[in-house]
Amino acid sequence: MTRTRLTLYDTTLRDGQQTQGVQFSTAEKQRIAEMLDTLGVDYIEGGWPGANPTDSAFFDAAPRTRATITAFGMTKRAGRSAANDDVLAAVMNAGTSAVCLVGKAHDFHVERALGITLAENTQNIASSIQHLVSEGREALLDAEHFFDGYKANPGYALEVCRAALDAGARWIVLCDTNGGTLPAEIGRITAEVIAAGIPGDRLGIHTHNDTENAVAGALAAVDAGARQIQGTLNGLGERCGNASLTTLIPTLLLKEPYANRYETGVTLEALQNLSRVSRKLDDILNRVPQRQAAYVGASAFAHKAGLHASAILKDPSTYEHIDPALVGNARIIPMSNQAGQSNLRRRLAEAGIEVAPNDPALALILDQIKEREAEGYTYDSAQASFELLARRALGTLPDFFEVKRYKVTVERRKNKHDRMVSLSEAVVVVKVDGEKKLSVSESMDDTGSDRGPVNALSKALAKDLGRYQSAIDDMRLVDFKVRITQGGTEAVTRVIIDSEDGQGNRWSTVGVSANIVDASFDALLDAINWKLLQDA
Amino acid sequence: MTRTRLTLYDTTLRDGQQTQGVQFSTAEKQRIAEMLDTLGVDYIEGGWPGANPTDSAFFDAAPRTRATITAFGMTKRAGRSAANDDVLAAVMNAGTSAVCLVGKAHDFHVERALGITLAENTQNIASSIQHLVSEGREALLDAEHFFDGYKANPGYALEVCRAALDAGARWIVLCDTNGGTLPAEIGRITAEVIAAGIPGDRLGIHTHNDTENAVAGALAAVDAGARQIQGTLNGLGERCGNASLTTLIPTLLLKEPYANRYETGVTLEALQNLSRVSRKLDDILNRVPQRQAAYVGASAFAHKAGLHASAILKDPSTYEHIDPALVGNARIIPMSNQAGQSNLRRRLAEAGIEVAPNDPALALILDQIKEREAEGYTYDSAQASFELLARRALGTLPDFFEVKRYKVTVERRKNKHDRMVSLSEAVVVVKVDGEKKLSVSESMDDTGSDRGPVNALSKALAKDLGRYQSAIDDMRLVDFKVRITQGGTEAVTRVIIDSEDGQGNRWSTVGVSANIVDASFDALLDAINWKLLQDA
Repeated sequence: MTRTRLTLYDTTLRDGQQTQGVQFSTAEKQRIAEMLDTLGVDYIEGGWPGANPTDSAFFDAAPRTRATITAFGMTKRAGRSAANDDVLAAVMNAGTSAVCLVGKAHDFHVERALGITLAENTQNIASSIQHLVSEGREALLDAEHFFDGYKANPGYALEVCRAALDAGARWIVLCDTNGGTLPAEIGRITAEVIAAGIPGDRLGIHTHNDTENAVAGALAAVDAGARQIQGTLNGLGERCGNASLTTLIPTLLLKEPYANRYETGVTLEALQNLSRVSRKLDDILNRVPQRQAAYVGASAFAHKAGLHASAILKDPSTYEHIDPALVGNARIIPMSNQAGQSNLRRRLAEAGIEVAPNDPALALILDQIKEREAEGYTYDSAQASFELLARRALGTLPDFFEVKRYKVTVERRKNKHDRMVSLSEAVVVVKVDGEKKLSVSESMDDTGSDRGPVNALSKALAKDLGRYQSAIDDMRLVDFKVRITQGGTEAVTRVIIDSEDGQGNRWSTVGVSANIVDASFDALLDAINWKLLQDA
Repeated sequence: MTRTRLTLYDTTLRDGQQTQGVQFSTAEKQRIAEMLDTLGVDYIEGGWPGANPTDSAFFDAAPRTRATITAFGMTKRAGRSAANDDVLAAVMNAGTSAVCLVGKAHDFHVERALGITLAENTQNIASSIQHLVSEGREALLDAEHFFDGYKANPGYALEVCRAALDAGARWIVLCDTNGGTLPAEIGRITAEVIAAGIPGDRLGIHTHNDTENAVAGALAAVDAGARQIQGTLNGLGERCGNASLTTLIPTLLLKEPYANRYETGVTLEALQNLSRVSRKLDDILNRVPQRQAAYVGASAFAHKAGLHASAILKDPSTYEHIDPALVGNARIIPMSNQAGQSNLRRRLAEAGIEVAPNDPALALILDQIKEREAEGYTYDSAQASFELLARRALGTLPDFFEVKRYKVTVERRKNKHDRMVSLSEAVVVVKVDGEKKLSVSESMDDTGSDRGPVNALSKALAKDLGRYQSAIDDMRLVDFKVRITQGGTEAVTRVIIDSEDGQGNRWSTVGVSANIVDASFDALLDAINWKLLQDA
């Protein structure tokens, strides 16, 4: 059976950036583009060249991708030619092979927001698309407010689509810009557009989540014949977000009637990276991943109800619509029951810790994890701290060294040039092999900048560990994440530290306290202990 | 025109409690039931009497509501009569006028999970429903796995529904228990069930969000003729959650074709409480509200894109599908480097700062915001810091006081009981009205717990500000958010502090530095300056 090809168009770097609180750096945009490319989307919309320095810089050094990196912009304004419009010129200057321009398809917006005639607007769209095509670019039109426009004035909305098509646009993307059109209406209107002569294989769909129907709206358009889907990773985007490709991709690949009927550029193998890609994006944004996100959320395959959990043990398909491994996710069964223990044993075995099925230490470890998670710890993203906790419970963690005390000072004052400067200083006292060692470090880096108290503490702690010193000399702190979370009744700070050594090993540890310096210190201690354990 | 009545069935207190990490207390269940009742849902499923002490206690002292408080349970087990099943007896003993029992409608589950014959299962369901009816209760059947069951064996799935109907069930609820059925299929199957003779006004729909289609699935069933919708507040529920009533209610009341065609027990007046109810539930659960939630999220009407923001200023309907006030939410035009001057002027005007359209200060302020956002600041969520920045640029910010220096010490050491304890101490030196003032505070709270260096600093800073002291006496720090972000080439810490005063004002300020204590200090300073400005 031949499957129809659907095209996936990602706009995380453009519409996704409209999420309140999201501001990508150029380097982050590059990392995200690479992640998208490993998934296998067809287009990556990189931003609006000329609109801000970050977007321009991204196109100046865009990564090499299989996907078509696409520049976004708007159609030329009235009163000048496409070739003489400086905003459009900046978009063209990004030099991408594909360019997507937004143009209005709703008469009300043309007259009210742009203040031009309908004919002028159609003309602006047509000549802008012609300009792209004459410069050898693949042209896409984002038909803004298409659905609202079609409901108000179907003739004009269709005229805009036809003008772009006749001018040579490869894709006309029907945008539900305000997110208010419900799926059934999106399906009906898309079918009417195709019946009016715009071929489905030239039509895209762009939906927003204002009624929680962005995914359903995109699917309804595909059902009606549209062949390109626009969306973002994790559903980032203006207001309530765009259609989530993180949800749409597995639905298209795994669920019927889509899996049998269509194909995309995403392979089943690449799909197994989906959960990781989703969480990596949240890492980059330092957002707390949504536990309940479809397919990729940490709770997406968590079976809390007792009846569900016991049936899952007999056969996972009783309460799972897909195998979580297909999207790189994992089943979670409450730690309290028997299944929790076999889960734990598997996780320990993965860390090279073999425990017999009925070892009482298993229950002890589960209890400790439960208790500490209630205090605000998380062991999902701090595997090294989890291993240390387990080894401590099993009595197999050596006492490498003991911390007797520490003291950190943070000071801000005027320097001799009458400028305010800050400096931190840390003193750590440890006992190694019966010998007491005092170390002191300050927070100044090589460039003379103050890196703060945790930096000073980290340096002091790693300064002199006696015979263990060589093992930690090549260790460095590569990431530091801080979250305020709830520990019992009080807000506490959770610090997760990522460390790296010279062999490229990378490990994560966690510390929790109402005192951020204390939480950081505990995570640092775990990081060093884990490293010493590897070398022991 | 007569509207058809749709029935809303809330299961926040039962299926919502299956959310990972959610564990209601009896008092919380009572508060939530009261919130649901002010909204106007028809049924409130309170839990499973007998399954756990909390649920039993809730029914013992259930609040008086307009809505029908409903007990949940399962149909009787094989090998005993309904009257002699102790699990069912516990459900009946809750004494509710309505009882909802779950029974399996999928042959695979009957045989695989229950290990009984199909005929026995049908018989268990029929006699359980008969038992409820004979005891004078309104009976509902949650037909578990109905859609998967219908796809595998439509005859048996329908047999279960008919048996319940014939036994006197008021409602047969078609459950997509595993959340894997897509909306189009839910619509088709619901229509087939009605065509097979089960009347639509006896049918309910219960969907889950495993493909992000719970809301769309519920709407598809209503389109096909089902007349009861089950869901939860904020979409709580097992795995990815249930259909969100927080989304479905405004969709049914405000969006076509639903608003014209149907009515519910929720009035337009009650709808204005929706955002408050949603946030109150998050408060009870101690969850961070989802900014991007449809209708009720803080970002649901936030217009970040420059083009959108300027059109919104002309006419809000250009980029809003409904008026946010209808659901008790509010429009936000965030500051960001994508915002234009008109956006900025509007934002300033809202803060009581009038600036002429072509004032050169506007460009200066935008430049400063751009520059600081590149350093890692964000003004989207720190309105008070934005106002201070603007006033500084306009030369209208008084110098209330000057910080000469500060010093914070964080120490961890053994106390006299040989236990490790931490304590922080902060010294702040300020100059007010030419007078130098030294203040010192430590981080211990009333309970003797260490709250860390930022707490100590905050207390020292607010300890003695001379003639400004009375203005800040009722100020308190209510939230503290920390993110590691990119400032230029270096990772920096961004701290956002939420403060509150005795009049219930709440404001947010931001600080950025590689040094977390410095970043916090700057955010604290802004918080105090903003407060002094209000009282000046």
